[in-house]
Amino acid sequence: MLKNRIATLLLISIVSVTSNAQTKAIYQDNTKPVKDRVEDALSRMTLEEKIAMIHAQSKFSSPGVPRLGIPENWMTDGPHGIRPETLWDEWDQANWTNDSCIAFPALTALAATWNKDMSLLYGKSIGEEARYRNKNVLLGPGVNIYRSPLNGRNFEYMGEDPFLTSKMVVPYIQGVQSNGVAACVKHFALNNQETNRHTVNVVVDDRALYEIYLPAFKAAVQEGDTWTIMGAYNRYKDQQACHNQYLLNDILKGEWAFEGTVIADWGGVNNTKEAIFNGMDLEFGTWTDGLSQGTKNAYDSYFLAQPYLKMIQSGEVGTKELDDKVRRVLRLSFLTTMAKDRPLGSFGTEEHALAGRKIAEEGIVLLQNKNNILPINLSKTKKVAVIGENAIKMMTVGGGSSSLKAKYEISPLDGLKNRIGSEAEVMYARGYVGDASTDYNGVNSGQNLAEKRSAQELKDEALKIAKEADIVIFVGGLNKSDFQDSEGHDRKSLGLPYNQDQLITDLLKVNKNLVFVNISGNAVAMPWVNQVPGIVQGWFLGTEGGNALASVLVGDVNPSGKLTFTFPARLEDNGAHAIGEFPGSKDVNYTESIFVGYRWTEIKKIKPLFAFGHGLSYTTFQYGKVTADKTNMGQSDKISFSVKVKNTGKRDGFEVVQLYISDLKSYLPRPVKELKEFEKVFLKAGEEKTVTFTVNKTALSFFDDKKHEWVAEPGDFEAIVGASSADIKSKVKFTLK
Amino acid sequence: MLKNRIATLLLISIVSVTSNAQTKAIYQDNTKPVKDRVEDALSRMTLEEKIAMIHAQSKFSSPGVPRLGIPENWMTDGPHGIRPETLWDEWDQANWTNDSCIAFPALTALAATWNKDMSLLYGKSIGEEARYRNKNVLLGPGVNIYRSPLNGRNFEYMGEDPFLTSKMVVPYIQGVQSNGVAACVKHFALNNQETNRHTVNVVVDDRALYEIYLPAFKAAVQEGDTWTIMGAYNRYKDQQACHNQYLLNDILKGEWAFEGTVIADWGGVNNTKEAIFNGMDLEFGTWTDGLSQGTKNAYDSYFLAQPYLKMIQSGEVGTKELDDKVRRVLRLSFLTTMAKDRPLGSFGTEEHALAGRKIAEEGIVLLQNKNNILPINLSKTKKVAVIGENAIKMMTVGGGSSSLKAKYEISPLDGLKNRIGSEAEVMYARGYVGDASTDYNGVNSGQNLAEKRSAQELKDEALKIAKEADIVIFVGGLNKSDFQDSEGHDRKSLGLPYNQDQLITDLLKVNKNLVFVNISGNAVAMPWVNQVPGIVQGWFLGTEGGNALASVLVGDVNPSGKLTFTFPARLEDNGAHAIGEFPGSKDVNYTESIFVGYRWTEIKKIKPLFAFGHGLSYTTFQYGKVTADKTNMGQSDKISFSVKVKNTGKRDGFEVVQLYISDLKSYLPRPVKELKEFEKVFLKAGEEKTVTFTVNKTALSFFDDKKHEWVAEPGDFEAIVGASSADIKSKVKFTLK
Repeated sequence: MLKNRIATLLLISIVSVTSNAQTKAIYQDNTKPVKDRVEDALSRMTLEEKIAMIHAQSKFSSPGVPRLGIPENWMTDGPHGIRPETLWDEWDQANWTNDSCIAFPALTALAATWNKDMSLLYGKSIGEEARYRNKNVLLGPGVNIYRSPLNGRNFEYMGEDPFLTSKMVVPYIQGVQSNGVAACVKHFALNNQETNRHTVNVVVDDRALYEIYLPAFKAAVQEGDTWTIMGAYNRYKDQQACHNQYLLNDILKGEWAFEGTVIADWGGVNNTKEAIFNGMDLEFGTWTDGLSQGTKNAYDSYFLAQPYLKMIQSGEVGTKELDDKVRRVLRLSFLTTMAKDRPLGSFGTEEHALAGRKIAEEGIVLLQNKNNILPINLSKTKKVAVIGENAIKMMTVGGGSSSLKAKYEISPLDGLKNRIGSEAEVMYARGYVGDASTDYNGVNSGQNLAEKRSAQELKDEALKIAKEADIVIFVGGLNKSDFQDSEGHDRKSLGLPYNQDQLITDLLKVNKNLVFVNISGNAVAMPWVNQVPGIVQGWFLGTEGGNALASVLVGDVNPSGKLTFTFPARLEDNGAHAIGEFPGSKDVNYTESIFVGYRWTEIKKIKPLFAFGHGLSYTTFQYGKVTADKTNMGQSDKISFSVKVKNTGKRDGFEVVQLYISDLKSYLPRPVKELKEFEKVFLKAGEEKTVTFTVNKTALSFFDDKKHEWVAEPGDFEAIVGASSADIKSKVKFTLK
Repeated sequence: MLKNRIATLLLISIVSVTSNAQTKAIYQDNTKPVKDRVEDALSRMTLEEKIAMIHAQSKFSSPGVPRLGIPENWMTDGPHGIRPETLWDEWDQANWTNDSCIAFPALTALAATWNKDMSLLYGKSIGEEARYRNKNVLLGPGVNIYRSPLNGRNFEYMGEDPFLTSKMVVPYIQGVQSNGVAACVKHFALNNQETNRHTVNVVVDDRALYEIYLPAFKAAVQEGDTWTIMGAYNRYKDQQACHNQYLLNDILKGEWAFEGTVIADWGGVNNTKEAIFNGMDLEFGTWTDGLSQGTKNAYDSYFLAQPYLKMIQSGEVGTKELDDKVRRVLRLSFLTTMAKDRPLGSFGTEEHALAGRKIAEEGIVLLQNKNNILPINLSKTKKVAVIGENAIKMMTVGGGSSSLKAKYEISPLDGLKNRIGSEAEVMYARGYVGDASTDYNGVNSGQNLAEKRSAQELKDEALKIAKEADIVIFVGGLNKSDFQDSEGHDRKSLGLPYNQDQLITDLLKVNKNLVFVNISGNAVAMPWVNQVPGIVQGWFLGTEGGNALASVLVGDVNPSGKLTFTFPARLEDNGAHAIGEFPGSKDVNYTESIFVGYRWTEIKKIKPLFAFGHGLSYTTFQYGKVTADKTNMGQSDKISFSVKVKNTGKRDGFEVVQLYISDLKSYLPRPVKELKEFEKVFLKAGEEKTVTFTVNKTALSFFDDKKHEWVAEPGDFEAIVGASSADIKSKVKFTLK
């Protein structure tokens, strides 16, 4: 009755044909297909409303259509947690008290789980956090390929292998989007260095582009159905990636038929006409300090704001491209804020913290374990010396846009104390002092750095407790400061900073029972590798990081992570550096082509410090001989490879069984082998399982850049099963007809 | 399949029985009754989560349950528009650019329409604005009774009559809540002065309480189904109204069975135990400047925060009251943020601006129109002199919590220029300068006040253009500065400020063709009333105010508003002032009892300046003789009164036909007559309609404070039909058996 009264009232007084009190418009009707709703909404919008919708209104939001009840879009960094609220047009935090998030492990750690279910759990959990905070676009995940260990932003990505990254990104997207929150896969594409990131022009051949740098994005679009993609800062073919005919129009929206929204990286747009015609849909982060061009609102001077409107009004450009952009932004609304059945999310919960811990525990990689120094034998260990700044340093703050305001963060030292403090004496010495990491807001991640002790005093203190201890846990590595694992700059060298190498060498002189925990999102050089019995890759593990690390160190959790990128022994063992093409300045020439990561070390027969796919366990696995279900396959056949894997140790554990394919002869150069399948299998002590991989010709194909198509060349191939790219268990030949 | 994978994943890894990925919990299930959902959610909450939920976390928000996906609650002032975003714990604006609202007419203007459909339209429209801005509680409407013309906050309320206010508040609530946004009817109760508002103790007899001060709240609860109520600042029976056994427990939640949430006025709580036991559900606005009591978060020191928690933990109080409060807050969530089918709202729209204009046009009251000076005869008018500061002053800024950041505001001068600028010369002189109104944020509502001209120069300028003009439109009255129509202070006198009376008198000497437009939410004295031919009550009309006013002044709209409160000729003609009980200091004694407004002037036989219900039209109406369908009615009967009303003029127009009832003899004193029905009827020129009112014994009843019950005393009554309380057209007697 009330509805009828309102309806009558509107009819007799002020009339609006779009009023939802009368009949529901198509765009408001959840039972109608999204495409129809988009067209209906579009048909009701004014030119000014359309222009407003395709650029930001604040640092992290863009307008909806207030007249039509289409909500605003609110974006949030980042891939690892929900960024705290900022002031309207500032990077500064707004000092809200309801926005302390769960910090999840960095994506490097997630990828190192080699477990798609962990990726789904991660996406679902962080998506719930975003949803509860009313963000409808999560600015992640990042899937740029690890080309050089010096890239400051590698820690946000998923490693060097296009297949692994493709498989891991899809469940993350599905998990996020199951909350009615869009993933925003970034940075499309070729954003592989931070130095000169806004200007460098990437020169890369199409083989490398299609085989190495694009597959994760393609999987995100075609398998993950990501609703948005973020354009990159860099240039390609002398056009900004954020408005790039080749990347956005030809490939993303053309070849891949992407229907979603291309969102600019913050400040990635710099030309109105290119933005109009070259595939940019939603402009964010353009500089607004000061009101330019005499506009009332700084955002009016955005490239896709008044300048675009004026071009349309003057007849210089048409509205076809505008409508296409608006359709894409509207689609985002219908899939997120206007999807009535989406769940409500949850935030800062124990469930999310435990999800993060589980992912962290599966992502930690046991790199070296001589004499079974790990797990720490608590029955024989009375004193544990924990040394190193990273044992106490907050790693959720700093590093650029992924900086967080975590609800809490368990440091490695606290994690160890929590776990073994009642059983052994845990001593701590900092050993060295690095530089402070601060976030955009100037929040400092460090403990009290005002310590007056000299480097020598710090070292002496560390040596003293190391001498007393049964075991030394050195927690070092990189941090989130500039020129370490941090956005905006690249690292300056492969080595550990702050003279850690010397400290480790000195520590070894007083106690050889030393475990090095490398907190980083990058490979580091380890000149002392043969003297240190235990080496653990500890990543950036978020809120529950210290507890996860402790559970692995003491053996509550049997480590099962595997490296997602190669640790070169020397910087020049990496392709990009071998050819002298990192970082580029005006142009950067990817002349190593497809030979990235293990593809480079294998073709060049370089022994890495630690190989792609490497990771040890506290148990042992015995592999049988791999067999194929056929020796010849046709172009449309599938082929299956099976291998028995047995846990021959005394602990339950996961093993990541890896399938590589080698093309024994081809008319274009190919890598020695490439990862084409993997499975993480859980085996109880003594248990044996058969792992079967089934592939089709896609796994055999390369991209022929002359023909511009994928080619599976008839001939002989080898299926190679390994526990890492360097630990090959067996091979089987087969032939493609 | 994705859902299954997530479910399986959670089962095998981290398990949460509440995960919505598995089976939907009852509280998450929209098909379940709200009561069941409330109980289910309550049963899952920890003590700390419950405590968090019943007090603010910021200036305008309170926590949901992040763990369970129950969203936060976001409140917004005020009754007349959606307040701009503020900083987290500051009154200061956050300087967002997406929050410029439509300013609707003040509630005084809405009430003056005497049109329930306008109230529904108002509620629906402002509710849409709140919904789009993601506010789930609108802090309004205000329904405190107009007891004295000096109350600084009268402009936010609906006048002096409990029946009129009751009828007008209900559709407002229904309109707001049709958006899934809760109304918050305020201020419960007896908040009738601003002076000493936090401390004054109201002493009032139960007859006045039940007959005058409570009916609008009761209607809001029982007819409007308001989901929340705001406690008042003042005291009653020496207890704060915000935690008041009598008002909240006995009456609101007891007698009226209110199931909703009692929200504190900002800073209205000052005692933990009373807040626990005396009906307060949700604490807001307690002073947080500085962290008190050593808590980490200033909000932890709220009376219903840590202090309550500690009392529970120590066993000093139980948790029964806590659960009751949480149930009420949860209910609010299920009815608003968790109601999946609620519409999405809209904001700052032309539709809302036009709704506001329509309401404004119907609310403007033509008080006096000698010689038909209005509407302005444009065929004979060449020059119009607009004089007075209020012709150019922004009235949407200032006045306290109702201060707005309007998308735009048409001033009376602009409205007139828009309408008649092409047909006549519109001259303007300010005439006088008042004080500047500023909002909490220091935003100034005035035009440039740095004019150096003296008062004499300003007056001379006004006299000069008045002399030249065919008609003078003097736009004066009050403004939103302190001690005018503004929260926090009461007016100091009934007279116009800034020497307007003298200016009007001087203007009359040069041009008798003068119209006084009173911009105010209060009655003012008019010592020159017999010399000024045209008088218009112009209220605070919001965004489209100037256009609405112009449309009435030129006759595009035929005025139809009626006064909702009495204009006394002198302050001492008002009951509260006659008895010397305004404003109270420690106690304020409402010894005038039920004789408020016209009930006072009528019993005292005082002729008001303008009577309750008064309002002229540009047409004329002729009333027939009222008839009753029976002469005797039983206690359970209904009785109907009919009267013919004819538009005898040449313009179409609305007339508000008013039915008063007079109890000719009673065992307790009664007012001369009381409004018991009204109908706003539209009549084309020459048209006649029959208006029928049907009432039952409720319309005849008074509250017997000894028996504590409503009594309809058998005996003789009179039904009185009038065009105002002073303009009686006819009467008919009947008897209650």
